[in-house]
Amino acid sequence: MEFSSKLLEQAVDQMSQLPGIGRRTALRLVLHLLRQPEHQTEQLSQSLTNLRSHIIFCEQCHNISDTPVCEICSNPNRSSELICVVEDIRDVMAIEATGQFKGKYHVLGGKISPMDGVGPGELKIQSLVERVRQGEVKELILALSATMEGDTTNFYIYRQLEGTEVDISTIARGIPVGDELEYADEVTLGRSLQDRIPFESSLKRN
Amino acid sequence: MEFSSKLLEQAVDQMSQLPGIGRRTALRLVLHLLRQPEHQTEQLSQSLTNLRSHIIFCEQCHNISDTPVCEICSNPNRSSELICVVEDIRDVMAIEATGQFKGKYHVLGGKISPMDGVGPGELKIQSLVERVRQGEVKELILALSATMEGDTTNFYIYRQLEGTEVDISTIARGIPVGDELEYADEVTLGRSLQDRIPFESSLKRN
Repeated sequence: MEFSSKLLEQAVDQMSQLPGIGRRTALRLVLHLLRQPEHQTEQLSQSLTNLRSHIIFCEQCHNISDTPVCEICSNPNRSSELICVVEDIRDVMAIEATGQFKGKYHVLGGKISPMDGVGPGELKIQSLVERVRQGEVKELILALSATMEGDTTNFYIYRQLEGTEVDISTIARGIPVGDELEYADEVTLGRSLQDRIPFESSLKRN
Repeated sequence: MEFSSKLLEQAVDQMSQLPGIGRRTALRLVLHLLRQPEHQTEQLSQSLTNLRSHIIFCEQCHNISDTPVCEICSNPNRSSELICVVEDIRDVMAIEATGQFKGKYHVLGGKISPMDGVGPGELKIQSLVERVRQGEVKELILALSATMEGDTTNFYIYRQLEGTEVDISTIARGIPVGDELEYADEVTLGRSLQDRIPFESSLKRN
Protein backbone atom coordinates (compact mmCIF):
# COMPACT_ATOMS: atom_id res chain seq x y z
CA MET A 1 0.00 0.00 0.00
CA GLU A 2 1.45 3.34 -1.07
CA PHE A 3 0.26 6.36 0.85
CA SER A 4 0.16 9.93 -0.36
CA SER A 5 0.74 11.18 3.18
CA LYS A 6 3.14 10.15 5.95
CA LEU A 7 0.60 11.21 8.59
CA LEU A 8 -1.98 8.94 7.03
CA GLU A 9 0.49 6.07 6.82
CA GLN A 10 1.46 6.44 10.48
CA ALA A 11 -2.18 6.45 11.58
CA VAL A 12 -2.90 3.34 9.49
CA ASP A 13 0.24 1.62 10.83
CA GLN A 14 -0.82 2.22 14.41
CA MET A 15 -4.45 1.28 13.84
CA SER A 16 -3.52 -1.97 12.11
CA GLN A 17 -1.60 -3.13 15.18
CA LEU A 18 -4.92 -3.77 16.89
CA PRO A 19 -5.98 -7.43 16.79
CA GLY A 20 -8.23 -8.35 13.85
CA ILE A 21 -7.66 -4.99 12.12
CA GLY A 22 -5.78 -5.38 8.83
CA ARG A 23 -4.32 -2.49 6.85
CA ARG A 24 -7.38 -2.14 4.61
CA THR A 25 -9.75 -1.95 7.58
CA ALA A 26 -7.37 0.43 9.34
CA LEU A 27 -7.42 2.73 6.30
CA ARG A 28 -11.22 2.60 6.19
CA LEU A 29 -11.44 3.53 9.90
CA VAL A 30 -8.91 6.34 9.62
CA LEU A 31 -10.62 7.82 6.54
CA HIS A 32 -13.91 7.65 8.45
CA LEU A 33 -12.37 9.71 11.27
CA LEU A 34 -11.16 12.27 8.71
CA ARG A 35 -14.73 12.72 7.49
CA GLN A 36 -16.06 13.24 11.03
CA PRO A 37 -15.77 16.46 13.05
CA GLU A 38 -12.34 16.87 14.64
CA HIS A 39 -13.66 16.57 18.20
CA GLN A 40 -14.60 12.93 17.58
CA THR A 41 -10.97 12.00 16.96
CA GLU A 42 -9.95 14.09 19.98
CA GLN A 43 -12.42 12.25 22.20
CA LEU A 44 -11.33 8.84 20.95
CA SER A 45 -7.63 9.62 21.51
CA GLN A 46 -8.32 11.22 24.86
CA SER A 47 -10.42 8.35 26.18
CA LEU A 48 -7.83 5.76 25.13
CA THR A 49 -4.97 7.73 26.71
CA ASN A 50 -7.01 8.37 29.87
CA LEU A 51 -7.91 4.73 30.20
CA ARG A 52 -4.34 3.55 29.68
CA SER A 53 -2.78 6.02 32.10
CA HIS A 54 -5.42 6.23 34.85
CA ILE A 55 -6.81 2.72 34.96
CA ILE A 56 -6.58 0.90 38.30
CA PHE A 57 -6.90 -2.80 38.94
CA CYS A 58 -8.81 -3.69 42.10
CA GLU A 59 -6.25 -4.71 44.73
CA GLN A 60 -8.46 -7.58 45.88
CA CYS A 61 -9.92 -9.17 42.74
CA HIS A 62 -7.72 -7.52 40.02
CA ASN A 63 -10.79 -6.47 38.04
CA ILE A 64 -10.52 -3.18 36.12
CA SER A 65 -11.71 -0.41 38.40
CA ASP A 66 -11.77 3.36 38.91
CA THR A 67 -11.04 2.95 42.63
CA PRO A 68 -8.41 0.96 44.56
CA VAL A 69 -11.09 -1.53 45.64
CA CYS A 70 -13.73 -2.20 42.96
CA GLU A 71 -17.48 -1.75 43.38
CA ILE A 72 -18.12 -5.46 43.63
CA CYS A 73 -15.43 -6.09 46.28
CA SER A 74 -16.60 -3.12 48.33
CA ASN A 75 -20.30 -4.05 48.13
CA PRO A 76 -21.40 -5.20 51.62
CA ASN A 77 -24.35 -7.12 50.13
CA ARG A 78 -22.06 -9.54 48.32
CA SER A 79 -20.65 -12.54 50.12
CA SER A 80 -16.89 -12.73 50.69
CA GLU A 81 -17.25 -16.46 51.37
CA LEU A 82 -17.88 -17.31 47.73
CA ILE A 83 -15.30 -16.42 45.07
CA CYS A 84 -15.65 -17.02 41.36
CA VAL A 85 -12.31 -17.39 39.56
CA VAL A 86 -12.34 -16.09 35.96
CA GLU A 87 -9.85 -15.40 33.19
CA ASP A 88 -10.57 -11.77 32.46
CA ILE A 89 -12.92 -8.87 32.92
CA ARG A 90 -15.19 -9.94 30.06
CA ASP A 91 -16.05 -13.07 32.04
CA VAL A 92 -16.96 -10.91 35.04
CA MET A 93 -19.28 -8.89 32.78
CA ALA A 94 -20.84 -12.07 31.36
CA ILE A 95 -21.49 -13.55 34.81
CA GLU A 96 -22.79 -10.25 36.19
CA ALA A 97 -25.23 -10.13 33.27
CA THR A 98 -26.81 -13.41 34.45
CA GLY A 99 -27.74 -11.79 37.78
CA GLN A 100 -27.20 -15.23 39.39
CA PHE A 101 -24.01 -14.66 41.33
CA LYS A 102 -23.90 -12.87 44.67
CA GLY A 103 -20.29 -13.59 45.67
CA LYS A 104 -17.08 -11.87 44.62
CA TYR A 105 -14.57 -12.47 41.84
CA HIS A 106 -10.92 -13.18 41.29
CA VAL A 107 -9.61 -12.17 37.84
CA LEU A 108 -6.55 -14.25 36.90
CA GLY A 109 -5.65 -12.19 33.83
CA GLY A 110 -5.51 -15.22 31.52
CA LYS A 111 -4.91 -18.93 31.77
CA ILE A 112 -1.78 -21.08 31.86
CA SER A 113 -0.69 -21.51 28.24
CA PRO A 114 2.95 -22.56 27.66
CA MET A 115 2.41 -22.14 23.90
CA ASP A 116 1.74 -18.43 24.40
CA GLY A 117 4.46 -18.08 27.04
CA VAL A 118 1.96 -17.67 29.88
CA GLY A 119 3.04 -19.51 33.02
CA PRO A 120 1.47 -19.44 36.52
CA GLY A 121 3.76 -16.53 37.44
CA GLU A 122 2.08 -14.27 34.86
CA LEU A 123 -1.33 -14.85 36.44
CA LYS A 124 -2.82 -13.65 39.73
CA ILE A 125 -2.73 -17.15 41.24
CA GLN A 126 -0.47 -16.37 44.21
CA SER A 127 -2.79 -13.59 45.33
CA LEU A 128 -5.73 -16.01 45.06
CA VAL A 129 -3.92 -18.48 47.33
CA GLU A 130 -3.26 -15.68 49.82
CA ARG A 131 -6.92 -14.60 49.70
CA VAL A 132 -7.99 -18.16 50.51
CA ARG A 133 -5.38 -18.55 53.26
CA GLN A 134 -6.82 -15.50 55.06
CA GLY A 135 -9.65 -17.87 55.98
CA GLU A 136 -12.79 -15.94 55.01
CA VAL A 137 -13.40 -17.79 51.73
CA LYS A 138 -15.57 -20.93 52.03
CA GLU A 139 -16.04 -21.86 48.36
CA LEU A 140 -14.14 -21.22 45.15
CA ILE A 141 -15.98 -21.60 41.83
CA LEU A 142 -13.54 -22.18 38.97
CA ALA A 143 -15.20 -20.59 35.91
CA LEU A 144 -12.47 -20.85 33.28
CA SER A 145 -12.88 -21.81 29.62
CA ALA A 146 -13.60 -25.48 28.92
CA THR A 147 -10.30 -25.84 27.05
CA MET A 148 -7.05 -27.66 27.77
CA GLU A 149 -5.52 -24.41 29.03
CA GLY A 150 -8.53 -23.79 31.26
CA ASP A 151 -8.35 -27.33 32.66
CA THR A 152 -4.59 -27.00 33.27
CA THR A 153 -5.13 -23.75 35.14
CA ASN A 154 -7.95 -25.29 37.19
CA PHE A 155 -5.73 -28.20 38.17
CA TYR A 156 -2.79 -25.93 39.03
CA ILE A 157 -5.01 -23.84 41.33
CA TYR A 158 -6.44 -27.00 42.89
CA ARG A 159 -2.91 -28.23 43.69
CA GLN A 160 -1.87 -24.88 45.14
CA LEU A 161 -4.81 -24.95 47.52
CA GLU A 162 -4.23 -28.46 48.84
CA GLY A 163 -4.22 -28.42 52.62
CA THR A 164 -6.67 -25.50 52.86
CA GLU A 165 -10.26 -25.93 53.99
CA VAL A 166 -11.87 -24.27 50.95
CA ASP A 167 -14.43 -26.12 48.82
CA ILE A 168 -13.54 -26.01 45.13
CA SER A 169 -16.19 -26.41 42.41
CA THR A 170 -16.27 -25.81 38.66
CA ILE A 171 -19.19 -24.50 36.64
CA ALA A 172 -21.34 -27.19 34.99
CA ARG A 173 -20.46 -28.36 31.49
CA GLY A 174 -23.42 -29.60 29.46
CA ILE A 175 -25.86 -28.94 26.67
CA PRO A 176 -26.51 -25.19 26.28
CA VAL A 177 -30.09 -24.19 27.17
CA GLY A 178 -32.16 -24.12 23.98
CA ASP A 179 -29.85 -26.44 22.02
CA GLU A 180 -30.85 -29.64 20.25
CA LEU A 181 -29.14 -32.84 21.43
CA GLU A 182 -28.22 -33.93 17.91
CA TYR A 183 -25.98 -30.89 17.39
CA ALA A 184 -24.04 -31.31 20.64
CA ASP A 185 -20.51 -32.73 20.38
CA GLU A 186 -19.97 -36.11 22.00
CA VAL A 187 -17.62 -34.89 24.75
CA THR A 188 -20.14 -32.32 25.96
CA LEU A 189 -22.98 -34.83 25.70
CA GLY A 190 -20.89 -37.40 27.61
CA ARG A 191 -20.13 -34.87 30.36
CA SER A 192 -23.79 -33.89 30.63
CA LEU A 193 -24.69 -37.56 31.17
CA GLN A 194 -22.02 -38.11 33.82
CA ASP A 195 -22.90 -34.89 35.62
CA ARG A 196 -26.67 -35.49 35.53
CA ILE A 197 -28.70 -33.94 38.36
CA PRO A 198 -31.93 -35.10 40.05
CA PHE A 199 -34.91 -34.02 37.96
CA GLU A 200 -36.61 -32.45 40.97
CA SER A 201 -33.71 -30.10 41.57
CA SER A 202 -33.75 -29.12 37.88
CA LEU A 203 -37.38 -28.01 38.36
CA LYS A 204 -36.22 -25.42 40.87
CA ARG A 205 -33.96 -23.68 38.33
CA ASN A 206 -35.32 -20.74 36.41
CA MET B 1 -23.13 -4.24 28.96
CA GLU B 2 -22.27 -3.18 32.51
CA PHE B 3 -18.77 -1.84 33.05
CA SER B 4 -16.79 -1.88 36.28
CA SER B 5 -15.01 1.33 35.25
CA LYS B 6 -16.20 4.61 33.78
CA LEU B 7 -12.87 5.07 31.99
CA LEU B 8 -13.28 1.68 30.33
CA GLU B 9 -16.87 2.47 29.38
CA GLN B 10 -15.88 5.79 27.78
CA ALA B 11 -13.10 4.15 25.77
CA VAL B 12 -15.46 1.43 24.55
CA ASP B 13 -18.14 4.03 23.73
CA GLN B 14 -15.70 6.01 21.60
CA MET B 15 -14.17 2.98 19.92
CA SER B 16 -17.58 1.56 19.00
CA GLN B 17 -18.44 4.71 17.04
CA LEU B 18 -16.06 3.55 14.33
CA PRO B 19 -17.84 1.87 11.41
CA GLY B 20 -18.08 -1.92 11.68
CA ILE B 21 -16.88 -1.94 15.30
CA GLY B 22 -19.58 -3.12 17.70
CA ARG B 23 -19.37 -2.83 21.47
CA ARG B 24 -18.01 -6.34 21.93
CA THR B 25 -15.23 -5.78 19.40
CA ALA B 26 -14.53 -2.36 20.92
CA LEU B 27 -14.14 -3.97 24.35
CA ARG B 28 -11.77 -6.58 22.90
CA LEU B 29 -9.63 -3.87 21.25
CA VAL B 30 -9.54 -1.71 24.36
CA LEU B 31 -8.59 -4.65 26.61
CA HIS B 32 -5.87 -5.52 24.11
CA LEU B 33 -4.44 -2.00 24.46
CA LEU B 34 -4.49 -2.36 28.24
CA ARG B 35 -2.32 -5.47 27.97
CA GLN B 36 0.22 -3.74 25.72
CA PRO B 37 2.91 -1.30 26.90
CA GLU B 38 1.56 2.20 27.55
CA HIS B 39 3.56 3.75 24.69
CA GLN B 40 1.52 1.80 22.12
CA THR B 41 -1.70 3.53 23.20
CA GLU B 42 0.18 6.85 23.27
CA GLN B 43 1.38 6.34 19.71
CA LEU B 44 -2.04 5.35 18.45
CA SER B 45 -3.72 8.37 20.06
CA GLN B 46 -0.96 10.69 18.93
CA SER B 47 -0.99 9.54 15.32
CA LEU B 48 -4.79 9.87 15.08
CA THR B 49 -4.75 13.35 16.59
CA ASN B 50 -1.81 14.41 14.41
CA LEU B 51 -3.52 13.15 11.28
CA ARG B 52 -6.79 14.85 12.11
CA SER B 53 -5.29 18.21 12.97
CA HIS B 54 -2.40 18.47 10.49
CA ILE B 55 -3.77 16.74 7.40
CA ILE B 56 -3.87 18.80 4.22
CA PHE B 57 -5.87 18.13 1.11
CA CYS B 58 -4.02 18.87 -2.15
CA GLU B 59 -5.38 22.18 -3.48
CA GLN B 60 -5.42 20.83 -7.04
CA CYS B 61 -6.70 17.23 -6.83
CA HIS B 62 -8.05 17.18 -3.21
CA ASN B 63 -6.11 14.01 -2.42
CA ILE B 64 -4.82 13.64 1.15
CA SER B 65 -1.36 15.15 1.29
CA ASP B 66 1.35 16.41 3.63
CA THR B 67 2.02 19.41 1.38
CA PRO B 68 -0.30 22.05 -0.20
CA VAL B 69 0.21 20.41 -3.61
CA CYS B 70 0.48 16.61 -3.46
CA GLU B 71 3.38 14.52 -4.81
CA ILE B 72 1.40 13.36 -7.84
CA CYS B 73 0.24 16.85 -8.86
CA SER B 74 3.74 18.29 -8.43
CA ASN B 75 5.44 15.47 -10.37
CA PRO B 76 6.70 16.93 -13.69
CA ASN B 77 6.78 13.45 -15.26
CA ARG B 78 3.02 13.08 -15.01
CA SER B 79 0.78 14.53 -17.67
CA SER B 80 -1.56 17.38 -16.74
CA GLU B 81 -3.56 16.69 -19.92
CA LEU B 82 -5.08 13.47 -18.57
CA ILE B 83 -7.15 13.53 -15.40
CA CYS B 84 -8.71 10.52 -13.71
CA VAL B 85 -11.80 11.38 -11.63
CA VAL B 86 -12.26 9.12 -8.58
CA GLU B 87 -14.44 8.99 -5.48
CA ASP B 88 -11.86 8.87 -2.75
CA ILE B 89 -8.23 8.38 -1.86
CA ARG B 90 -8.54 4.57 -1.76
CA ASP B 91 -9.32 4.65 -5.48
CA VAL B 92 -6.17 6.70 -6.10
CA MET B 93 -4.17 4.07 -4.21
CA ALA B 94 -5.81 1.24 -6.18
CA ILE B 95 -5.08 2.88 -9.55
CA GLU B 96 -1.52 3.83 -8.53
CA ALA B 97 -0.96 0.16 -7.61
CA THR B 98 -1.68 -0.84 -11.24
CA GLY B 99 1.25 1.30 -12.44
CA GLN B 100 -0.79 1.94 -15.64
CA PHE B 101 -1.73 5.57 -15.17
CA LYS B 102 0.64 8.45 -15.88
CA GLY B 103 -1.81 11.35 -15.63
CA LYS B 104 -3.12 13.17 -12.57
CA TYR B 105 -6.20 12.71 -10.38
CA HIS B 106 -9.25 14.56 -9.17
CA VAL B 107 -10.72 13.25 -5.90
CA LEU B 108 -14.43 14.08 -5.64
CA GLY B 109 -14.82 13.01 -2.02
CA GLY B 110 -17.78 10.71 -2.72
CA LYS B 111 -20.54 10.37 -5.28
CA ILE B 112 -23.96 11.96 -5.66
CA SER B 113 -26.33 10.04 -3.40
CA PRO B 114 -29.57 11.76 -2.42
CA MET B 115 -30.38 8.84 -0.08
CA ASP B 116 -27.30 9.67 2.00
CA GLY B 117 -27.84 13.43 1.68
CA VAL B 118 -24.89 13.90 -0.68
CA GLY B 119 -25.61 16.39 -3.46
CA PRO B 120 -23.24 17.84 -6.08
CA GLY B 121 -22.44 20.73 -3.71
CA GLU B 122 -20.84 18.36 -1.20
CA LEU B 123 -18.41 17.07 -3.84
CA LYS B 124 -15.42 18.70 -5.52
CA ILE B 125 -17.23 18.96 -8.87
CA GLN B 126 -17.07 22.75 -9.23
CA SER B 127 -13.29 22.73 -8.83
CA LEU B 128 -13.09 19.97 -11.48
CA VAL B 129 -15.05 22.15 -13.90
CA GLU B 130 -12.70 25.05 -13.18
CA ARG B 131 -9.65 22.82 -13.71
CA VAL B 132 -11.01 21.79 -17.11
CA ARG B 133 -11.93 25.39 -18.07
CA GLN B 134 -8.31 26.46 -17.52
CA GLY B 135 -7.69 24.63 -20.80
CA GLU B 136 -4.73 22.36 -20.07
CA VAL B 137 -6.80 19.17 -19.64
CA LYS B 138 -7.36 17.15 -22.85
CA GLU B 139 -9.05 14.02 -21.49
CA LEU B 140 -11.05 13.18 -18.40
CA ILE B 141 -11.35 9.50 -17.36
CA LEU B 142 -14.39 8.95 -15.13
CA ALA B 143 -13.43 6.08 -12.80
CA LEU B 144 -16.34 5.96 -10.37
CA SER B 145 -18.10 2.86 -9.00
CA ALA B 146 -20.32 0.99 -11.46
CA THR B 147 -23.38 1.75 -9.35
CA MET B 148 -26.43 3.95 -9.85
CA GLU B 149 -24.79 6.69 -7.73
CA GLY B 150 -21.62 6.42 -9.78
CA ASP B 151 -23.56 6.64 -13.04
CA THR B 152 -25.54 9.63 -11.76
CA THR B 153 -22.34 11.43 -10.79
CA ASN B 154 -20.76 10.61 -14.17
CA PHE B 155 -23.75 12.07 -15.96
CA TYR B 156 -23.82 15.18 -13.77
CA ILE B 157 -20.15 15.86 -14.49
CA TYR B 158 -20.74 15.23 -18.21
CA ARG B 159 -23.53 17.83 -18.26
CA GLN B 160 -21.45 20.37 -16.34
CA LEU B 161 -18.69 20.10 -18.94
CA GLU B 162 -20.91 20.56 -21.99
CA GLY B 163 -19.45 23.22 -24.21
CA THR B 164 -15.86 22.51 -23.21
CA GLU B 165 -13.38 20.82 -25.56
CA VAL B 166 -12.39 18.03 -23.16
CA ASP B 167 -12.75 14.36 -24.13
CA ILE B 168 -14.63 12.37 -21.53
CA SER B 169 -14.20 8.59 -21.17
CA THR B 170 -15.16 6.02 -18.57
CA ILE B 171 -13.16 2.98 -17.49
CA ALA B 172 -14.18 -0.28 -19.22
CA ARG B 173 -16.84 -2.46 -17.62
CA GLY B 174 -16.55 -6.16 -18.39
CA ILE B 175 -15.56 -9.60 -17.19
CA PRO B 176 -12.81 -9.37 -14.55
CA VAL B 177 -9.50 -10.86 -15.72
CA GLY B 178 -9.30 -14.49 -14.53
CA ASP B 179 -13.07 -14.92 -14.14
CA GLU B 180 -15.21 -17.64 -15.74
CA LEU B 181 -17.99 -16.46 -18.05
CA GLU B 182 -20.63 -18.62 -16.38
CA TYR B 183 -20.25 -16.76 -13.08
CA ALA B 184 -20.57 -13.27 -14.58
CA ASP B 185 -23.88 -11.47 -14.07
CA GLU B 186 -25.89 -10.80 -17.21
CA VAL B 187 -25.58 -7.00 -17.10
CA THR B 188 -21.78 -7.17 -16.98
CA LEU B 189 -21.70 -9.85 -19.68
CA GLY B 190 -24.03 -7.74 -21.84
CA ARG B 191 -21.83 -4.67 -21.41
CA SER B 192 -18.70 -6.65 -22.26
CA LEU B 193 -20.34 -7.79 -25.52
CA GLN B 194 -21.45 -4.27 -26.50
CA ASP B 195 -18.06 -2.78 -25.61
CA ARG B 196 -16.04 -5.48 -27.41
CA ILE B 197 -12.64 -4.45 -28.75
CA PRO B 198 -10.67 -5.66 -31.81
CA PHE B 199 -8.80 -8.86 -30.93
CA GLU B 200 -5.55 -7.48 -32.26
CA SER B 201 -5.65 -4.54 -29.88
CA SER B 202 -6.35 -6.94 -26.98
CA LEU B 203 -3.09 -8.73 -27.85
CA LYS B 204 -1.19 -5.55 -27.09
CA ARG B 205 -2.46 -5.42 -23.49
CA ASN B 206 -0.34 -6.95 -20.76
